[in-house]
Amino acid sequence: MKFLVINGPNLNLLGQREPSIYGRADYKALCERLRAFAADHQSSAVCMQSNHEGDIIDAVHEAQGKFDAIIINPGALTHYSYALLDALAGVNLPAIEVHISNVHKRDEFRRRSVTASACIGQICGLGFFGYEAAMLYFLEGEKA
Amino acid sequence: MKFLVINGPNLNLLGQREPSIYGRADYKALCERLRAFAADHQSSAVCMQSNHEGDIIDAVHEAQGKFDAIIINPGALTHYSYALLDALAGVNLPAIEVHISNVHKRDEFRRRSVTASACIGQICGLGFFGYEAAMLYFLEGEKA
Amino acid sequence: MKFLVINGPNLNLLGQREPSIYGRADYKALCERLRAFAADHQSSAVCMQSNHEGDIIDAVHEAQGKFDAIIINPGALTHYSYALLDALAGVNLPAIEVHISNVHKRDEFRRRSVTASACIGQICGLGFFGYEAAMLYFLEGEKA
Amino acid sequence: MKFLVINGPNLNLLGQREPSIYGRADYKALCERLRAFAADHQSSAVCMQSNHEGDIIDAVHEAQGKFDAIIINPGALTHYSYALLDALAGVNLPAIEVHISNVHKRDEFRRRSVTASACIGQICGLGFFGYEAAMLYFLEGEKA
Amino acid sequence: MKFLVINGPNLNLLGQREPSIYGRADYKALCERLRAFAADHQSSAVCMQSNHEGDIIDAVHEAQGKFDAIIINPGALTHYSYALLDALAGVNLPAIEVHISNVHKRDEFRRRSVTASACIGQICGLGFFGYEAAMLYFLEGEKA
Amino acid sequence: MKFLVINGPNLNLLGQREPSIYGRADYKALCERLRAFAADHQSSAVCMQSNHEGDIIDAVHEAQGKFDAIIINPGALTHYSYALLDALAGVNLPAIEVHISNVHKRDEFRRRSVTASACIGQICGLGFFGYEAAMLYFLEGEKA
Amino acid sequence: MKFLVINGPNLNLLGQREPSIYGRADYKALCERLRAFAADHQSSAVCMQSNHEGDIIDAVHEAQGKFDAIIINPGALTHYSYALLDALAGVNLPAIEVHISNVHKRDEFRRRSVTASACIGQICGLGFFGYEAAMLYFLEGEKA
Amino acid sequence: MKFLVINGPNLNLLGQREPSIYGRADYKALCERLRAFAADHQSSAVCMQSNHEGDIIDAVHEAQGKFDAIIINPGALTHYSYALLDALAGVNLPAIEVHISNVHKRDEFRRRSVTASACIGQICGLGFFGYEAAMLYFLEGEKA
Amino acid sequence: MKFLVINGPNLNLLGQREPSIYGRADYKALCERLRAFAADHQSSAVCMQSNHEGDIIDAVHEAQGKFDAIIINPGALTHYSYALLDALAGVNLPAIEVHISNVHKRDEFRRRSVTASACIGQICGLGFFGYEAAMLYFLEGEKA
Amino acid sequence: MKFLVINGPNLNLLGQREPSIYGRADYKALCERLRAFAADHQSSAVCMQSNHEGDIIDAVHEAQGKFDAIIINPGALTHYSYALLDALAGVNLPAIEVHISNVHKRDEFRRRSVTASACIGQICGLGFFGYEAAMLYFLEGEKA
Amino acid sequence: MKFLVINGPNLNLLGQREPSIYGRADYKALCERLRAFAADHQSSAVCMQSNHEGDIIDAVHEAQGKFDAIIINPGALTHYSYALLDALAGVNLPAIEVHISNVHKRDEFRRRSVTASACIGQICGLGFFGYEAAMLYFLEGEKA
Amino acid sequence: MKFLVINGPNLNLLGQREPSIYGRADYKALCERLRAFAADHQSSAVCMQSNHEGDIIDAVHEAQGKFDAIIINPGALTHYSYALLDALAGVNLPAIEVHISNVHKRDEFRRRSVTASACIGQICGLGFFGYEAAMLYFLEGEKA
Repeated sequence: MKFLVINGPNLNLLGQREPSIYGRADYKALCERLRAFAADHQSSAVCMQSNHEGDIIDAVHEAQGKFDAIIINPGALTHYSYALLDALAGVNLPAIEVHISNVHKRDEFRRRSVTASACIGQICGLGFFGYEAAMLYFLEGEKA
Repeated sequence: MKFLVINGPNLNLLGQREPSIYGRADYKALCERLRAFAADHQSSAVCMQSNHEGDIIDAVHEAQGKFDAIIINPGALTHYSYALLDALAGVNLPAIEVHISNVHKRDEFRRRSVTASACIGQICGLGFFGYEAAMLYFLEGEKA
Repeated sequence: MKFLVINGPNLNLLGQREPSIYGRADYKALCERLRAFAADHQSSAVCMQSNHEGDIIDAVHEAQGKFDAIIINPGALTHYSYALLDALAGVNLPAIEVHISNVHKRDEFRRRSVTASACIGQICGLGFFGYEAAMLYFLEGEKA
Repeated sequence: MKFLVINGPNLNLLGQREPSIYGRADYKALCERLRAFAADHQSSAVCMQSNHEGDIIDAVHEAQGKFDAIIINPGALTHYSYALLDALAGVNLPAIEVHISNVHKRDEFRRRSVTASACIGQICGLGFFGYEAAMLYFLEGEKA
Repeated sequence: MKFLVINGPNLNLLGQREPSIYGRADYKALCERLRAFAADHQSSAVCMQSNHEGDIIDAVHEAQGKFDAIIINPGALTHYSYALLDALAGVNLPAIEVHISNVHKRDEFRRRSVTASACIGQICGLGFFGYEAAMLYFLEGEKA
Repeated sequence: MKFLVINGPNLNLLGQREPSIYGRADYKALCERLRAFAADHQSSAVCMQSNHEGDIIDAVHEAQGKFDAIIINPGALTHYSYALLDALAGVNLPAIEVHISNVHKRDEFRRRSVTASACIGQICGLGFFGYEAAMLYFLEGEKA
Repeated sequence: MKFLVINGPNLNLLGQREPSIYGRADYKALCERLRAFAADHQSSAVCMQSNHEGDIIDAVHEAQGKFDAIIINPGALTHYSYALLDALAGVNLPAIEVHISNVHKRDEFRRRSVTASACIGQICGLGFFGYEAAMLYFLEGEKA
Repeated sequence: MKFLVINGPNLNLLGQREPSIYGRADYKALCERLRAFAADHQSSAVCMQSNHEGDIIDAVHEAQGKFDAIIINPGALTHYSYALLDALAGVNLPAIEVHISNVHKRDEFRRRSVTASACIGQICGLGFFGYEAAMLYFLEGEKA
Repeated sequence: MKFLVINGPNLNLLGQREPSIYGRADYKALCERLRAFAADHQSSAVCMQSNHEGDIIDAVHEAQGKFDAIIINPGALTHYSYALLDALAGVNLPAIEVHISNVHKRDEFRRRSVTASACIGQICGLGFFGYEAAMLYFLEGEKA
Repeated sequence: MKFLVINGPNLNLLGQREPSIYGRADYKALCERLRAFAADHQSSAVCMQSNHEGDIIDAVHEAQGKFDAIIINPGALTHYSYALLDALAGVNLPAIEVHISNVHKRDEFRRRSVTASACIGQICGLGFFGYEAAMLYFLEGEKA
Repeated sequence: MKFLVINGPNLNLLGQREPSIYGRADYKALCERLRAFAADHQSSAVCMQSNHEGDIIDAVHEAQGKFDAIIINPGALTHYSYALLDALAGVNLPAIEVHISNVHKRDEFRRRSVTASACIGQICGLGFFGYEAAMLYFLEGEKA
Repeated sequence: MKFLVINGPNLNLLGQREPSIYGRADYKALCERLRAFAADHQSSAVCMQSNHEGDIIDAVHEAQGKFDAIIINPGALTHYSYALLDALAGVNLPAIEVHISNVHKRDEFRRRSVTASACIGQICGLGFFGYEAAMLYFLEGEKA
């Protein structure tokens, strides 16, 4: 399968930003891990990150026909970007929302996702493994 | 009159996204229809679409001196972009907000527009005709 | 087409009530303009106005079989008359909700319509032209 | 590793209850699948299900010393059982919350979890695979 | 000290937009004044303005290692950009939030800042002087 | 016993309006059924329906001395007519509120009755039988 | 001066309805008292009462040119009739809102008046005297 | 027909608890009355009562195949037991919710039922007769 | 009768503070007018004003045995002083709350009085006459 | 006096669960301390603990006739168990609610007790002493 | 130990104000009882009461170095005096909040304490004994 | 210029109260620093502090004619003293609100200022420098 992994605002700061919450590995390490994981499963993972809501919406649109599934960590856009919700709902690609940290343990506003209802499901709190679990879910379906 | 028609996030998906709500005609068809309509009324319509809030704000700013009126469908930005509200309020150009679907029949959050108060008015639910009605409104004024 | 134009409470005060918001033309002028507009489009417009919620509901019910479409400005009933919502939803006639002023620029309570979800769409802030735009919408459909 | 898999109220109805949401496999099939999955990973999974909040709290308490991790689908208790929250927070066992369906796509009240803040993370919408992903997370940790 | 002065959406309209609130001096004048002020205090101020949330987040990230402090007027992003909040919280640079107008005297929604909690403090209502006061604060610290 | 059966706005549309919710029998059939039911129980039922809140309040007032009990389906007035609440509370006649459909399964606003607190009780979701059950309740009391 | 005294829904029940709150005197006694009071002050008071929102709005409209001031007890319409608010705001006649009982001591919903903002002021809790005080206020002005 | 009558927490206190609200007859009397009533209608009624949410959910589940309909007074569980809501929605048995007292006349929290949306309808305020009316509803259907 | 007239915070600024709302007469003029008015009615009025909540509570307490009634304009304490509410409720003296301006026409927070429920009633918007009307109410009672 | 001391969900974890909040003494130590304290005051204390809401309600019911007073720490049931509220209100036994920790210093949801209104009073934050203070209160009454 | 007992607004009315809630003993009796109780426990209690928030804050500040603990019944200040919250949090003296009545049984606004989070704990509903229990708590600690 | 610096409740505790938030310098040091700073700018600063809302309102009133500007840190009164809001709005003196700490980083209730709308602006989080910045703002104006 071909996965598009989208990371939203500030995820480029991984490893630097609040390591007690997000861990010490940086964004590059995340991408390498995910690409390797995909390869181990006869798949490919393309990673993109942007701090621009518009870039992320564009990427969702353009993924059609090029990828089989989207794995998206919208960062803080999760909590207010109805435009991203519409983008995910508007394309014919399945998506899973991933958060590295447990959004239920932090600020009140982080407990509400406006984007998750346009996804198949959501994984939070499982660190980088969350992205891999999302890939496994799609690969499972393939096997079935 | 010279109209700037601005379409916000995901309106490039027209025809593909939820056709039962938005109809089957695509964004290109919309632009062609609006340009033809404007021409029929001795006017011109320039269409732009972007998934980037910033691009839309830039377009609103730059419209001053180049256009007589703005017709804007902010897409989901309607519901949270106070920055777009400020842009519309900050320029000396009249604007009308248009929604293709009836925002009152869908998700609760779509019933609230944060941008409409900076416009002359709002039209929703009338499909592509809504854009034309907005043009007619401005042309009417011209006649009066 | 045969249009029934319904105006709700206090619209008989047009021209007298807050002219800065509603303009100087009175209710009679509105009716004459709409009848003329309809005639210009090979149609007819019957206007009724009432300050009584019940009269308006009765009119919506009785419009079935006599008219092709309803154009309704429910006045302040817009904001609390669930009974009018049910009336509009209960009949087999398409309706468009019209407001002369931009309801998003005034009191907070005016930003919420409880009736618009039973209509095809809503037009606000475009003055008397809003009624005409609604007629044009229905006439468009006829042509198509 | 030794996993305790706890399923809350109504999950015994799996396969019967709203199959469009929960799928057609029943609770017994879920348990068998999870036990097999655990065995495949040199682990064991004990499954318990109860419609009694108290039984579930008891099970959480008693899991200490007997299991390495808890995988819990609290069913509707997710949305109001502060007692279960306290139970999960009160024991020295890591837990992951799992929901078979995407709670963000259903009733408004299902979007809020009062128990997830006492867990490592939450997985929803991935069907039975969600439980397996939770196991994999714990097994990953072991390897690291 | 090296200051990065960030101005958010619509601040390029300074002098044009609601002069009764924002004054008559334009954005260019603001920048010149701030650069001069910084120079008078043996410091430098680099000004950037963007209507793009993403550009502002990028600027915050890239300021690390190049500047000593950020002075930011997020414009309307103040009220909803959790992504900007995360950006400010994620970098190792002190920031002060500035608003030219008194946000407590205007729309209700302007009274709430979602970004200020990631700053050292906030100054509002003091016009262009607010930016200078922020610089003085940082320079003070230097002396101490 | 002498029953006054009051039906509020839009109940004259019975049989036409949303038959999947309200059934196919019309208002006339309802009245005939209730009159026959009453007669079968040595009682009489007078039916009135109005789309006018004022008519319904008048009817409640005038029922004193002429009827033994009121059975009222206020239609959508249920959700906002504090005036009807006061009317029911102001007369010395027992009343039962009836809804044909289950108000808890529909729009959020229908879950709240402002009038039921002035009644003995409320029956909803049992179709036309709800009115009969209300009569039986009063007849029961008589027997006791 | 010529006063129009308008009493809204259920005030015809005065003397019968909750005498502990509204006293034992009936509506007729109120009218006689107010007419006599007006006569004692070289004025006249015309009383009207209706349970119909529409009648009350009509009366407000028609009062123009015939009366010098309106004294209105809107009954429960106070709490939801935005149409009455618009009527009072739309005519060129001063009005004072009167409530016989202290609305702050009763149900929560009675503490909010949606109509009082279109009046000069409001008097509540002073029984029938409230209407007289309103007249005195207008007569005072005359003297001044 | 075979009815399962479920009474929730504290209904075993009937006759003792707040007799002004619940009457003087005790739980045993209720059961005898309902069994007799069922017998009079060629039916049977099995009564169960529990203060345990889990027992009630179990009973709902186990009723399948043994009973034709459920008549349930969930007591205070009505107001928070989403697990009971799921149980009622998850089984293939029709249910009617009954409350002895008028829940609209008591504490604010009692006006909201979280379980009624999974039932055919709800009856409140009619004392023990409410249970009988529910049986009659099901028997009616049988006749039809 | 002996009246204690209490004026709360900032009423000493009368005549200076927002004359468009409060008029041009100052606090001294108010007191003189009220004393004269009382004298004209064979009564006396003692006026006190304080910006201290505690002083006002003390005055309410000490009024017992010395005065027949309290007329109180609590100023902004109206909107938050539960301590003043308790003071008014705790003494055996009738009180009427008076506001010079119409609190319903100003800031949202001014529409709610936390003190009025401990008074006989409330008068607002009638200027200085409001205090006199309150005295007349008490004198009326005396006559009756 | 005979006291029934009821401890709700998770209080069996005392000593283990968040010792910084609840202290290091365990549940057994609490019971022993309370029994000894009661004995010192010529009384007896029976302790029960359950994680089952139903068990606690049963215990409250059965305490009638066997105990003189209930001292209850409902644990997290405090915040949602309306069924426990009804149980405490439904029996003829005085009760005092006790919390070991200061509920006002912790999560927002812990600041609201739905059960305390059915008790004589509430004690929180005083550790194990809170239970003893409750006993002393009842013993005091006995002396008086 | 040396206790400072602070009573807030209106507690000087004890014995007079709502005796059904607060009992018949007056403030003087409370002080005597508490002083005697303290003396019986080799301690002293100084009582102060004020209707002035500022006096109470001053007293809290000045208690440092003179007393060992504060027992405070803030009266209605409990519900809005954030200044008192800050005072209690700002001094190095332990405090317990006491309410004579059960605040959970009265007005909704009384259920929320803004001051209790700065105290060790809170006791309500136990009458004058509540103050004694607070003393006992501090004395206990001393013994331990 | 002549500045009046007003500090509200608990600011006399500076240096003692939560030094991590407010710093170690005490109130006396603050006053000396501000007086020196004013003197350095050919101005004078008079400092007053009170824990009494009334004293602060009095001080605001009496500042007229004696001072050129007010610099006020209302302490916790910021969050509820509508009376102070009215005082600041009622006098003809410009004021700036200052908070030593960043109110956006602390309790939720501290994020809302009810007094700032009557000031020119607000400065928070800049420690003692905030007061100086406020003075500089006024002095700037003087130069201009």
